[in-house]
Amino acid sequence: MIESEYKIRVRYAETDRMGVVYYGNYSQYYEVARTELIRGLGISYKEVEERGYKLPVYKMNITYFYPAEYDDLLRIETIIPEKPGIKMKFLHKIFNEQNVLINEAEVVLVFTDDKTKKACTPPDFFSKLINKNFKD
Amino acid sequence: MIESEYKIRVRYAETDRMGVVYYGNYSQYYEVARTELIRGLGISYKEVEERGYKLPVYKMNITYFYPAEYDDLLRIETIIPEKPGIKMKFLHKIFNEQNVLINEAEVVLVFTDDKTKKACTPPDFFSKLINKNFKD
Amino acid sequence: MIESEYKIRVRYAETDRMGVVYYGNYSQYYEVARTELIRGLGISYKEVEERGYKLPVYKMNITYFYPAEYDDLLRIETIIPEKPGIKMKFLHKIFNEQNVLINEAEVVLVFTDDKTKKACTPPDFFSKLINKNFKD
Amino acid sequence: MIESEYKIRVRYAETDRMGVVYYGNYSQYYEVARTELIRGLGISYKEVEERGYKLPVYKMNITYFYPAEYDDLLRIETIIPEKPGIKMKFLHKIFNEQNVLINEAEVVLVFTDDKTKKACTPPDFFSKLINKNFKD
Repeated sequence: MIESEYKIRVRYAETDRMGVVYYGNYSQYYEVARTELIRGLGISYKEVEERGYKLPVYKMNITYFYPAEYDDLLRIETIIPEKPGIKMKFLHKIFNEQNVLINEAEVVLVFTDDKTKKACTPPDFFSKLINKNFKD
Repeated sequence: MIESEYKIRVRYAETDRMGVVYYGNYSQYYEVARTELIRGLGISYKEVEERGYKLPVYKMNITYFYPAEYDDLLRIETIIPEKPGIKMKFLHKIFNEQNVLINEAEVVLVFTDDKTKKACTPPDFFSKLINKNFKD
Repeated sequence: MIESEYKIRVRYAETDRMGVVYYGNYSQYYEVARTELIRGLGISYKEVEERGYKLPVYKMNITYFYPAEYDDLLRIETIIPEKPGIKMKFLHKIFNEQNVLINEAEVVLVFTDDKTKKACTPPDFFSKLINKNFKD
Repeated sequence: MIESEYKIRVRYAETDRMGVVYYGNYSQYYEVARTELIRGLGISYKEVEERGYKLPVYKMNITYFYPAEYDDLLRIETIIPEKPGIKMKFLHKIFNEQNVLINEAEVVLVFTDDKTKKACTPPDFFSKLINKNFKD
């Protein structure tokens, strides 16, 4: 598996009138966490797109346990549990500064090739980075 | 069950550089669809909050099938499949104007009482509206 | 000038922990109001883009007078005060259901040509629609 | 005056189908820049609110010069040009990594007292921090 951790501070804009982070905004935090995990592999997600591939989201399952508040410095643990094929799975857990689990999510992306507009297996340059960083 | 339908037009702001609606923004469409379903029952969700209850989201599972584009007039079908207890389940399906299924989601909310800050069964005024509108 | 009116209901997602609409979200309401004004002229903004033009924002000046709340049904008055050249100016005023002025804004867009990537005067198909709908 | 600098990386969610940051999303960047400037003074904005004061935005004037793109690491320069009275003015400039000016904004906030719900002069604990950090 591949593990990564990233911290994000909650913006005022991300809260709602319940006084906590709006349930739909965590998807942005997951996105940033994935982006930084991929950067840690040795390539930016932007470059993946520039090389002709996109990774739209196919599935997102979130379970919410505890609210995050304005100005909380959240810690996001992200795991790629298995080597990606056409699908690439990410597991996210978000914790606040008191180490309380805020929510957890499984997000599945799909490799797609700009030329064919169809799903595809990961391009070589990406698989190599996965293999290099993957730990059993 | 209780059924409802609502239409939302995609805003420019809701698209991303992939040219389609950002995967995290559908949660706003679901929220609006739930709000309008509840309004159709005979009470606004705002009034539910003013009477001392909140309905935070406990679970959201989305499967994405097809991208929605800028200016699409989306149709959201929403169903409450069973009478709510502490948990209240909503099933959403979003279609575009060509009747293509964009995505579907199950969203589970939890009734919470402002006084106790704890989960609770639906208040009487709400259960009455559910019973009145529920069809087997 | 050209006048238009559009109504938007405030979403839960658009409020912040102050209990009112986040100051940055009004820009989305203005965008929707412009989109619907243009649709009223006889073309969708989407089609303007498909014909090879874009209208990025050059300037936005907002003055905030009163907060909008969750579930408010806002009325947005939009005016094009003068025929557009390279720049196209919109004046927006947002009112709540009690007719209280929420805020007002001046937003200036710039016609740009996809081919040259440069600012340009409005294309003929657009100028014709402006001329047809403009009232002195 | 008081000066501050903060860096923010553009999220995928913040771009739109023009391929650049949506014009309305910069208000979030300005908000974060103000929050971090205030933290640098020795208090969090969250604590200002907890002590019974809010700072809603009264005015925002933005001029857009150049688009910011996905994954850009933006640098936001923020200045408080004069000691705040009832109004507190912030000047923001955003630059990309090539040091190109993306946009600039003037944002004016108003101190309001939770008890009176009215505008007020800055509370003592805040004025002291301003005076301590202000440079002529």
